[in-house]
Amino acid sequence: MPAEFHEIAKRINNWGRWGDTDEIGTLNLITEAVVRATAATVTSGRRIPLALPLQQDGVQTGVIPGRVNPLHTMTGINVELAGPGTVATSDDIVTMGLQAATHWDGLAHVSHSGRLYNGRPAESITTHGRAAFSGVEKAGPIVSRGVLLDVTRARGVDRLDAGHVVTPEDLDAAEELAGVTVGRGDIALIRTGQIQRYLAGDKQAYTYPSPGLSIRTPEWFHARDVAAVANDTLTFEIFPPEIEGLWLPVHALDLVEMGMMQGQNWNLEELSQACAEARRYAFLLAATPEPFVGGVGAPVAPVAIL
Amino acid sequence: MPAEFHEIAKRINNWGRWGDTDEIGTLNLITEAVVRATAATVTSGRRIPLALPLQQDGVQTGVIPGRVNPLHTMTGINVELAGPGTVATSDDIVTMGLQAATHWDGLAHVSHSGRLYNGRPAESITTHGRAAFSGVEKAGPIVSRGVLLDVTRARGVDRLDAGHVVTPEDLDAAEELAGVTVGRGDIALIRTGQIQRYLAGDKQAYTYPSPGLSIRTPEWFHARDVAAVANDTLTFEIFPPEIEGLWLPVHALDLVEMGMMQGQNWNLEELSQACAEARRYAFLLAATPEPFVGGVGAPVAPVAIL
Amino acid sequence: MPAEFHEIAKRINNWGRWGDTDEIGTLNLITEAVVRATAATVTSGRRIPLALPLQQDGVQTGVIPGRVNPLHTMTGINVELAGPGTVATSDDIVTMGLQAATHWDGLAHVSHSGRLYNGRPAESITTHGRAAFSGVEKAGPIVSRGVLLDVTRARGVDRLDAGHVVTPEDLDAAEELAGVTVGRGDIALIRTGQIQRYLAGDKQAYTYPSPGLSIRTPEWFHARDVAAVANDTLTFEIFPPEIEGLWLPVHALDLVEMGMMQGQNWNLEELSQACAEARRYAFLLAATPEPFVGGVGAPVAPVAIL
Amino acid sequence: MPAEFHEIAKRINNWGRWGDTDEIGTLNLITEAVVRATAATVTSGRRIPLALPLQQDGVQTGVIPGRVNPLHTMTGINVELAGPGTVATSDDIVTMGLQAATHWDGLAHVSHSGRLYNGRPAESITTHGRAAFSGVEKAGPIVSRGVLLDVTRARGVDRLDAGHVVTPEDLDAAEELAGVTVGRGDIALIRTGQIQRYLAGDKQAYTYPSPGLSIRTPEWFHARDVAAVANDTLTFEIFPPEIEGLWLPVHALDLVEMGMMQGQNWNLEELSQACAEARRYAFLLAATPEPFVGGVGAPVAPVAIL
Repeated sequence: MPAEFHEIAKRINNWGRWGDTDEIGTLNLITEAVVRATAATVTSGRRIPLALPLQQDGVQTGVIPGRVNPLHTMTGINVELAGPGTVATSDDIVTMGLQAATHWDGLAHVSHSGRLYNGRPAESITTHGRAAFSGVEKAGPIVSRGVLLDVTRARGVDRLDAGHVVTPEDLDAAEELAGVTVGRGDIALIRTGQIQRYLAGDKQAYTYPSPGLSIRTPEWFHARDVAAVANDTLTFEIFPPEIEGLWLPVHALDLVEMGMMQGQNWNLEELSQACAEARRYAFLLAATPEPFVGGVGAPVAPVAIL
Repeated sequence: MPAEFHEIAKRINNWGRWGDTDEIGTLNLITEAVVRATAATVTSGRRIPLALPLQQDGVQTGVIPGRVNPLHTMTGINVELAGPGTVATSDDIVTMGLQAATHWDGLAHVSHSGRLYNGRPAESITTHGRAAFSGVEKAGPIVSRGVLLDVTRARGVDRLDAGHVVTPEDLDAAEELAGVTVGRGDIALIRTGQIQRYLAGDKQAYTYPSPGLSIRTPEWFHARDVAAVANDTLTFEIFPPEIEGLWLPVHALDLVEMGMMQGQNWNLEELSQACAEARRYAFLLAATPEPFVGGVGAPVAPVAIL
Repeated sequence: MPAEFHEIAKRINNWGRWGDTDEIGTLNLITEAVVRATAATVTSGRRIPLALPLQQDGVQTGVIPGRVNPLHTMTGINVELAGPGTVATSDDIVTMGLQAATHWDGLAHVSHSGRLYNGRPAESITTHGRAAFSGVEKAGPIVSRGVLLDVTRARGVDRLDAGHVVTPEDLDAAEELAGVTVGRGDIALIRTGQIQRYLAGDKQAYTYPSPGLSIRTPEWFHARDVAAVANDTLTFEIFPPEIEGLWLPVHALDLVEMGMMQGQNWNLEELSQACAEARRYAFLLAATPEPFVGGVGAPVAPVAIL
Repeated sequence: MPAEFHEIAKRINNWGRWGDTDEIGTLNLITEAVVRATAATVTSGRRIPLALPLQQDGVQTGVIPGRVNPLHTMTGINVELAGPGTVATSDDIVTMGLQAATHWDGLAHVSHSGRLYNGRPAESITTHGRAAFSGVEKAGPIVSRGVLLDVTRARGVDRLDAGHVVTPEDLDAAEELAGVTVGRGDIALIRTGQIQRYLAGDKQAYTYPSPGLSIRTPEWFHARDVAAVANDTLTFEIFPPEIEGLWLPVHALDLVEMGMMQGQNWNLEELSQACAEARRYAFLLAATPEPFVGGVGAPVAPVAIL
């Protein structure tokens, strides 16, 4: 890892901040007061879904080994339980990567230098127990103030270019557009518009190359004590990476150093439209991950309530 | 089907009520006004999770063919993406029945007499397209006022007996305890305490026999224009059934006739405690199903916000 | 379907040949005498495997919906069953399309005009029971004389061109090279060399376009009373098809009309080398499908014993 | 591990016998000569299948975590590929434990004292690569002489009692009944009759308690240089174990020390009848495992050819 990485890491590291036994990192910043205050700001009651539909024709192209799109099949169709003419039931199952579609990265999704968040040994993730520390089920109910940082709209474009690195300056501009000061316990949703490529049917273009967050953004979130961050790309951070050969540095900084969960493949298009129309970029966000015990990630069906 | 079933069905039938093309039934009753009004009542900001942890040691015992507990495995553990010493990722997948744990029944989960909700032909569910009508992804974001109808507490017991049929009179008593008038667009959560058996490690006792809702309850919900109902049992309704040989009549009435989604395996224990302490049984409920395209059911991680 | 198809179909149709209740078609042609006679010809004892390794990096590219490559994960690694220091076990699971790798098409894999082999209604395949007739488990143990028809070698090339249609004349030439008269109960293995493309890492080129069998070949097999046929391509027959718009006519003729199972993705490279060296193209073939009840296809690990 | 275990282990250990890089152990003992000689003994051409049907109602009861019965669903039923009236295909997938039904234990299935067969470190099994050494795909084509050791018939009973430990003396008696000297490269099939319990519908009784092989049997196989062993039980060895607290000692001796693969859940009932009628207990056995790369076990559809 280059020196730059280590310097940033030192400035944003949260290990021990909530005690040696903490497993949820910046989710500690979501307080009942934040939730209460945000609920009070709900003025329209409009609910906007941010999840992609779960289907085999999902965003995965096979590039990430094992992260398979939802394979959803029926185990029974109109089975008459007590004989002909009686009530009939249908049932279904799925096989899918927990990070295949709209998801949260659990804190254990990434390690570096043999360590997970809060200094836990990377080897604590095993086949048998999955993530012994910071499993995604530990996150509990994620409900807080969400703020849309519409970098795309702030730049006056429909979609960021494939090579666009989202910088702290971009976030500043989006915050200004939002007219909101991002603060303690907020969940920041960063819009790049990249997901339009998938929605238009071009999975390959969606995957790579992709705009995404700069290695300089974790400090921006750290300074504001943000609880979590999500965006509308497959890789979250710029890909190919800013610094050649340094893959997923933002993941390492956010998840391992700060203990801050990241969301990916969130569809922010309708939300962007709604916020622009309402001239309001903060809302109540309900985004509880499916509580897979020991999961290193989890599907989520987030909803913004304006 | 006995005459009693058909008489009730006639009184509560909602086919055509929201047009011939409607696929979501009583979810139409959730209005922005309901959400807005409920958000304003959030006074503590406390968030209570209602989902069971997702794990192989889940509630399924094999009795329902194909409805398998989550089988959650790792596809990679600390894989160093760009060579030794670089950032490492872990990844996981799952195979599970969509109704294996805490879930919503989609409207297409049940048919009777060859019909689904709103008169759609049962044959519209196929392996290839799954549920063509009323797939669970059509439900969209489910956020509304939740009301806990704590039948157990209202009867002054810790847990209903295995053979207890939850009647409209039980619901009246629970409504009185709640001090709330259940109304249009509400989501009613009915507590029986049965899930304690699973939480205590006895899956078999949880499964069967089980207390549950009476064939007389759909009318109670219909009269109040409730949007959806969930409880803390595997079968939702009393099992074995009230009328010998008439399996799942409540499913048929709720899902097919009324077009009202049902939730099962919801853990209402912590919520019961919290409501009793706060002397408050209504709250903001965020319970959006994972949007499986054509799903006849879906996992959900519901949260009550008080 | 064009007239040509129907004319061929009439000439090769085997419906009723082994009775109205038959479910295995030309496998009836394998007699104990064939097996006994072939066993007597084993002169070297050499065993040649014909299956591709089962792995996620398999031949499927996503073109066939749901036919997923083997996703093979561990459910336990070195789990010490009775405490530290005791014997430890590892365990694994797989999710895969039954026809994802080296496989047999079951007779129920294809229908046309609403019919399966022996006139069974196509609707007899359901989600609940899978193939009620001619499920792949009905095939039983498939062991017979195998004959390699090395069309590639007979033409003096390393691999057939992508657009090469394997004709009856090609089969004649390969039979002559083999020095064997293909006969009753034999299993014919047709080599095109196409699988070299996959083995060399180019899945896309392997998939499409592909050489394969002509619509004229079923008559060749029918005339000789062959029991089954397999080759080294993904689609078995020429693709794109010989007659524009007529997809999978050979499947329809072989499986539905003749009741003859087809194998695909068989690796015939080592076998080709061995046969050429031994100047011997007939052998004992053990190729029993995994007996999935109601399966429309099944993985197989075939072995040629020379 | 008790002293007795270590003493036996010392006497039967095969590490290094076929070189330090060997990964297949006693399969080395199957020579072309053995196969050739056995093929010459095929006198009837009768083929007897030894695999259980693969279905959800399989032998697994949930006792072994993650080892799930085959969950077999359709991904398409009669899908008309090129539009209405054209050829239609059906397709299916499965999720299953590789050792769920009739299977081979790969050599990497068990470790003890941190070691696998041939001294390989147990840690060489990983989620990412699965078994780096002795993966089941390394076994290659398993075809050899099979010998039925019908312990049940030799004792004059229909089925061994649940507590019956199969001893070397039992094997001697069965060998005498067989009229065959078990020798180098043979695959021994040991019949207990226990599988009758599953076939009769009582999975629980099949599982446990179960008759099975004694800790004294590995020496018997070692003395004869047997290539592999299989039987008709879930656990292979007596369960509960002979020596209290010493779980799976026979697995540890056979797989780790000798490098000898074990088969379980083989249905030997029809074979027993056939051998008794033919007064012949040796045959050609084709039992090639599905070649899962890095698999610690694999399904197999074995066939005895008499």
